[in-house]
Amino acid sequence: MLPPTLVPPPFDAGSVWLVGAGPGDPGLLTLHALHALTQAEVVLHDALVSEEILSLAAQARLEPAGKRAGGARTPQLRINQRLIALARTGARVVRLKGGDPLVFGRGGEEALALAAAGIPFRIVPGISAGIGGTAAASIPITHRGIARSVTFATGHDSSGQLTGLDWSSLGEVAVLYMAGRQLGAIAAQMLSAGRDPKEGVALIQDATRPGQTVRVTTLAEAANAPASVSPTLIVIGPVVALRERLSVFQQTSPMTTIEETRKAQAVG
Amino acid sequence: MLPPTLVPPPFDAGSVWLVGAGPGDPGLLTLHALHALTQAEVVLHDALVSEEILSLAAQARLEPAGKRAGGARTPQLRINQRLIALARTGARVVRLKGGDPLVFGRGGEEALALAAAGIPFRIVPGISAGIGGTAAASIPITHRGIARSVTFATGHDSSGQLTGLDWSSLGEVAVLYMAGRQLGAIAAQMLSAGRDPKEGVALIQDATRPGQTVRVTTLAEAANAPASVSPTLIVIGPVVALRERLSVFQQTSPMTTIEETRKAQAVG
Repeated sequence: MLPPTLVPPPFDAGSVWLVGAGPGDPGLLTLHALHALTQAEVVLHDALVSEEILSLAAQARLEPAGKRAGGARTPQLRINQRLIALARTGARVVRLKGGDPLVFGRGGEEALALAAAGIPFRIVPGISAGIGGTAAASIPITHRGIARSVTFATGHDSSGQLTGLDWSSLGEVAVLYMAGRQLGAIAAQMLSAGRDPKEGVALIQDATRPGQTVRVTTLAEAANAPASVSPTLIVIGPVVALRERLSVFQQTSPMTTIEETRKAQAVG
Repeated sequence: MLPPTLVPPPFDAGSVWLVGAGPGDPGLLTLHALHALTQAEVVLHDALVSEEILSLAAQARLEPAGKRAGGARTPQLRINQRLIALARTGARVVRLKGGDPLVFGRGGEEALALAAAGIPFRIVPGISAGIGGTAAASIPITHRGIARSVTFATGHDSSGQLTGLDWSSLGEVAVLYMAGRQLGAIAAQMLSAGRDPKEGVALIQDATRPGQTVRVTTLAEAANAPASVSPTLIVIGPVVALRERLSVFQQTSPMTTIEETRKAQAVG
């Protein structure tokens, strides 16, 4: 399914490709990811990866893993062991993860386990939500004259608690992953460190999907906001203010599948 | 050239798509980027974008722009004006940039100019070098238990000087773009702020391309290093140490073109 002039690297039997699926829009898959999905014998996928993306691996056996799989969370150690066991059967194995495998994706742990077991692997980067989701929300996370740095941070540690990060020194622009529950506490810490209460805060849900929502508030209001349960991408910084000028002219409709298009037409 | 089940969003006549080409490997193009390249009538491209990627837009007129184009640098204002003029002829215009358009890519400025001129545009995120280049160098920029945050920063301002960033508060892991010339000064500032002199520093050149090189040193040594002239991606932080365990088993060969493969075979 690649352009006929492109030659992909071989996907060896008995190897594992750790593949980033991007934030949701199938159009944000890379060509390497598409190649991997169409060549894989087994796809061990995060439960958050969409049906539209999984449908590209029609020939593969799909195994859900990770958070929210079957109502329970698969422990990381078991995922590592499963990847090793599958590779040892000689299968071409894809481990498919939302976003990018190495940006808060625990792909590093999986890669270390594979290396320790002597199994060859490839890391296929994906569009991280902090880049693709913020772009879809019309927020240029770096912008000359406004931001020379951007910090990506995770809102909670492995036990779901606020991480011990020093939130007062997050830098010019902060992009927080999975931080809906911790936003109030983080905003309060940033305010007490002297940041401008009127600084913009954007809350992005279902980034790059048809149901994407973006809500803009201020640091002062965010400090008093009730905790959000659903996974939310948060941007804090002066670049949030640019959204207003950009979003009117920005096109953001995602790539979709023939099946989804038919469903939408049947409803409409 | 897309999988037959995928339906891309329309690329309207008279609109501009700001497209990220990723760090170099054509396999890191997104499906949206591939679609845009095969549909465009004009591609205004950074001079650093490879021939292999440009060859995917065989039907389009190619116009070089940006740094290193024809030996001189095209002023940003002129690029903005050219995009607007091309769109007003009713053409489908791609503005193709290395990495991601909004991560130190000045795509925000181009988007603001298009919005001010009333021209519809789309931002197609790309794999930023800070994510794709570090992955190819076997460095997981976030790793549970080691790094809960990562800061992307640019090493120089528009005049080529060291930016006024507070380098002492860069956070757990710092990824510096185009900072080869400033590394010594940055490392010295980080050391004087109390960071561990033995902390790892990775210097990555030609990330994800066949000639990729990775050199690992320490913060103490980096403070005394001579300035590098070529564009270098730099990672500073404890995650650099993981590279040693990962790189032996990691496969990194890029996707290539039939033509490049033939050339390599003729040489070999």
